[in-house]
Amino acid sequence: MQLIDGKQTAADIKQEIALAVSLMVQEGKKRPHLAAVLVGHDGGSETYVANKVKDCETVGFQSTLIRFEDNVTEEELLAKVDELNQDENVDGFIVQLPLPRHISENKVIEAIDPKKDVDGFHPINLGRMMLGMPAFVSATPAGIIELISRYNIETAGKHCVVIGRSNIVGRPVSILLSQKAKPGNCTVTVCHSRTPNIADITRQADILIAAIGSPGFVKADMVKDGAVVIDVGTTRLPSDKTKTGYKLHGDVLFDEVAPKCSYITPVPGGVGPMTIVSLLKNTLLAGRKEIY
Amino acid sequence: MQLIDGKQTAADIKQEIALAVSLMVQEGKKRPHLAAVLVGHDGGSETYVANKVKDCETVGFQSTLIRFEDNVTEEELLAKVDELNQDENVDGFIVQLPLPRHISENKVIEAIDPKKDVDGFHPINLGRMMLGMPAFVSATPAGIIELISRYNIETAGKHCVVIGRSNIVGRPVSILLSQKAKPGNCTVTVCHSRTPNIADITRQADILIAAIGSPGFVKADMVKDGAVVIDVGTTRLPSDKTKTGYKLHGDVLFDEVAPKCSYITPVPGGVGPMTIVSLLKNTLLAGRKEIY
Repeated sequence: MQLIDGKQTAADIKQEIALAVSLMVQEGKKRPHLAAVLVGHDGGSETYVANKVKDCETVGFQSTLIRFEDNVTEEELLAKVDELNQDENVDGFIVQLPLPRHISENKVIEAIDPKKDVDGFHPINLGRMMLGMPAFVSATPAGIIELISRYNIETAGKHCVVIGRSNIVGRPVSILLSQKAKPGNCTVTVCHSRTPNIADITRQADILIAAIGSPGFVKADMVKDGAVVIDVGTTRLPSDKTKTGYKLHGDVLFDEVAPKCSYITPVPGGVGPMTIVSLLKNTLLAGRKEIY
Repeated sequence: MQLIDGKQTAADIKQEIALAVSLMVQEGKKRPHLAAVLVGHDGGSETYVANKVKDCETVGFQSTLIRFEDNVTEEELLAKVDELNQDENVDGFIVQLPLPRHISENKVIEAIDPKKDVDGFHPINLGRMMLGMPAFVSATPAGIIELISRYNIETAGKHCVVIGRSNIVGRPVSILLSQKAKPGNCTVTVCHSRTPNIADITRQADILIAAIGSPGFVKADMVKDGAVVIDVGTTRLPSDKTKTGYKLHGDVLFDEVAPKCSYITPVPGGVGPMTIVSLLKNTLLAGRKEIY
């Protein structure tokens, strides 16, 4: 069993991005600039955005944090999106989700210029990804593909089973892995809450991707010997054993599943660290105008 | 075994559309207007487009056929697309594919205003479909969903296996059937040319959709008893038994597979007739501004 070290891989990629940025600066080009829009004071969102901004500094990006209170109107937010679309100094930006209920997330996402949509949530980026065209791919699926690629895990002709059909993880990763690409060319099955015989399906998986947010859902008897297991779950549960008072739990019962695997990602330290790095990579691509 | 009669269903839907159009006209609204752009003289394309125009007349649409010779430049074609985008009298239009090699199909498709993209090929319509947002869904997958719906075939919790990962059939239908919708909520597996053990997978299918364009690929031993089989294949092979000199062949060996099925679509007369009807339905939706 080999552990897939997302933390180390993410650190390697950050170094690569930092190097690329320093070369850009040497060539007289401007640093890539990521802007993040944060509405309200949700604890999770604040932490994510703070980490994104910190990581921008680490790799040498310019970064801007734009904050609104919970009572911002949809019009005000859309006006800011339009301003960022126009701002030539901003290469890419994100609007941290979720948004307050009185604001349409779809409307805000569709207002973002696809060329600056480094979260890859705009329908046009999803559609281009689906067509195999250059596109910003959202962070988690991009991170999973990167891990599979860097660990030289063979995917062609393998059966990949994805548990979860979310728009930001399950669906896009299922598409990416079944495309004529490398990594890719998997036979892919998407399971979800309405799949009755889920263990019969997961036991067929050469590559099993769990992305449902249900702690410990995948047990040893659901996994084939020698499978590659990618755990996307990150559910915070209270814990009296950590300083923070909580502990992250994956969708996989690691201790009993890991011995059966050829490769497995831990939680934390697997897919999680790759997510922010994928956003940085998209920002670098935006700065270099490599997608559009 | 029940035959799924696509020809009859398509005729029913055409009548429904014709009725909707006559109501629009009674209310003083203009008739939906479909324009079709045809480049060159490919026999297949000429027939398809001629049928589309004829069917427009049948249901009371206005239709316009715009022809270019093979040597049209990309700029000229893009200028026509722009003109159709601007033309308020045109509700929807299609550019018949394939295009000559010197023209980028992606560029032309992305130039079409998504609001008039009744073929549903624009990345933004694919992305919106993926997100479960209102979108023009391309004709063949929309036709398949319509048949499943009109025959009241249960999909929730069923295992659907799609053979083929094309952007216009396999991929979109696999997404639609796995979504939280009705029809939908299937566990979906996408197989393709790189799937090694394809019969092991297809034998698990409660619903089997064959969309690879390989005549007679699906044999009786690849199908579970009681399965629903949807045959999307339409390969023309020479024949001395028909007036036209050719015969359409599906991807399924109908004679040996049909007795095992609960439902099956024939070729011809199954999915094929639904395809043009789906385009008409999209044009009606465009005329009524129901998607955007």
